[in-house]
Amino acid sequence: MSTITLLEFSRIAHKELPLLEVFGFNVERLENGECTVRANYKEDFLRPGGTVSGPIMMALADFAMWGAIMSRAGRVQMAVTSNLNINFLIRPEPGDIVAEAKVIKLGKRLAVGVVELFGNHQQSDLVAHVTCTYSLPPQPNN
Amino acid sequence: MSTITLLEFSRIAHKELPLLEVFGFNVERLENGECTVRANYKEDFLRPGGTVSGPIMMALADFAMWGAIMSRAGRVQMAVTSNLNINFLIRPEPGDIVAEAKVIKLGKRLAVGVVELFGNHQQSDLVAHVTCTYSLPPQPNN
Amino acid sequence: MSTITLLEFSRIAHKELPLLEVFGFNVERLENGECTVRANYKEDFLRPGGTVSGPIMMALADFAMWGAIMSRAGRVQMAVTSNLNINFLIRPEPGDIVAEAKVIKLGKRLAVGVVELFGNHQQSDLVAHVTCTYSLPPQPNN
Amino acid sequence: MSTITLLEFSRIAHKELPLLEVFGFNVERLENGECTVRANYKEDFLRPGGTVSGPIMMALADFAMWGAIMSRAGRVQMAVTSNLNINFLIRPEPGDIVAEAKVIKLGKRLAVGVVELFGNHQQSDLVAHVTCTYSLPPQPNN
Repeated sequence: MSTITLLEFSRIAHKELPLLEVFGFNVERLENGECTVRANYKEDFLRPGGTVSGPIMMALADFAMWGAIMSRAGRVQMAVTSNLNINFLIRPEPGDIVAEAKVIKLGKRLAVGVVELFGNHQQSDLVAHVTCTYSLPPQPNN
Repeated sequence: MSTITLLEFSRIAHKELPLLEVFGFNVERLENGECTVRANYKEDFLRPGGTVSGPIMMALADFAMWGAIMSRAGRVQMAVTSNLNINFLIRPEPGDIVAEAKVIKLGKRLAVGVVELFGNHQQSDLVAHVTCTYSLPPQPNN
Repeated sequence: MSTITLLEFSRIAHKELPLLEVFGFNVERLENGECTVRANYKEDFLRPGGTVSGPIMMALADFAMWGAIMSRAGRVQMAVTSNLNINFLIRPEPGDIVAEAKVIKLGKRLAVGVVELFGNHQQSDLVAHVTCTYSLPPQPNN
Repeated sequence: MSTITLLEFSRIAHKELPLLEVFGFNVERLENGECTVRANYKEDFLRPGGTVSGPIMMALADFAMWGAIMSRAGRVQMAVTSNLNINFLIRPEPGDIVAEAKVIKLGKRLAVGVVELFGNHQQSDLVAHVTCTYSLPPQPNN
């Protein structure tokens, strides 16, 4: 029941978000207020301690939430993050990170969601937990 | 009174943080629990609406706080972010972003700080506000 | 498999937390890292707009997380909140609020959890979402 | 330059916020986007460890921000908190807590602020740091 398909969202993202190429994120699922995105591991992601850098995980969560919102609200690519709060739980070993974003409130002006980040090697392990609020652009008929 | 100099911090950062090259961050000041870092503008930073992408600002804030902590606690590059909360206030126009990080608590196990992000064109305008907690590595004599 | 029972937790809480009487919170469930607490509605909870005051919901979430942690870690009543982040989603109508807290990470030094707050009238409606970090007291055998 | 006086704000607060009596908060200053509120110490505030309970500090911060916003935006008592993030830094000894709230952004739909909480005994010690977003009611002329 999503109002934008995975393909359409990927097209928008690749066209309008140059950082996507730098980070190498790949949208795996997009439907009904949920979005799964994978950060394909690159050595550039590492930080001292041999773990994946926090900013990669923050960028991944923020991007996955953008997708989750558009899967419900349509082509609102002008939606911008107003608040993001992340708790880092486990230091992920080198490898892919998968973000699963879910909209928990879609209002007229704000959308709020939760993103869970998992390490690739142990899919069951939550490496970080994010809550995120986007400010939605005014709608023509509002 | 800092226990690490700007030069030493930059050397550690450039050696151990590959993303630094990708982002092009430049440390401008580091002393006594404070650190100023500039994100030199690149077109890659843009997102829909012609404004600087949130993940760049989150990465910048996180990095500036790492520096601020080391300026007080020394070579604790194994310190990792445990929580980061960001409020985006104004959509910055294309241009440099400058982060001013400040430690507000340095405990044995946790360090907490505040980071203010300013747009280049109007230095007086706060574009985002961040609070950030780092978990510190155990010290030999603790 | 909880290391403290609902009864023991309630006894500690009523003895050591005077605000509990003021707020009228009632622990309904406590097991295995999860804790459900009900705020029995009082007129004192109201704020302008005829909705339940935010501080009641913050107090409820914070308290439910304390219980969830003790259900896993035992009698660590000296555990203190280090960070709490709340997103208010819907203005609850006058009535009970129910908090469901869940530990998502239990480390040696920090415990992190998520609390969902529901309004009484429509149990399916999430009125607020909280993430919360507690700092744990040092353990004798650590 | 405030658009509401301390006296007017106190009157609204005491009339419309029953919890204010329970908590015993006292507004000390209100002007130009800033508000100082004191929580007069009561034994009820204590929690295990002999320190002031977190929920008191969260309630205090939330209330002080409400005042700070009205000092800039006028009688917007229908403004409601949408996000609050608190970092507890030091466990305050039994005694008054003083909150100093400051608006850092006043938009049409959202107001964002920072609140610093100080313990009474050592005014220089920051015991907690809060960032807080309020959702503003629609204005007649918007």
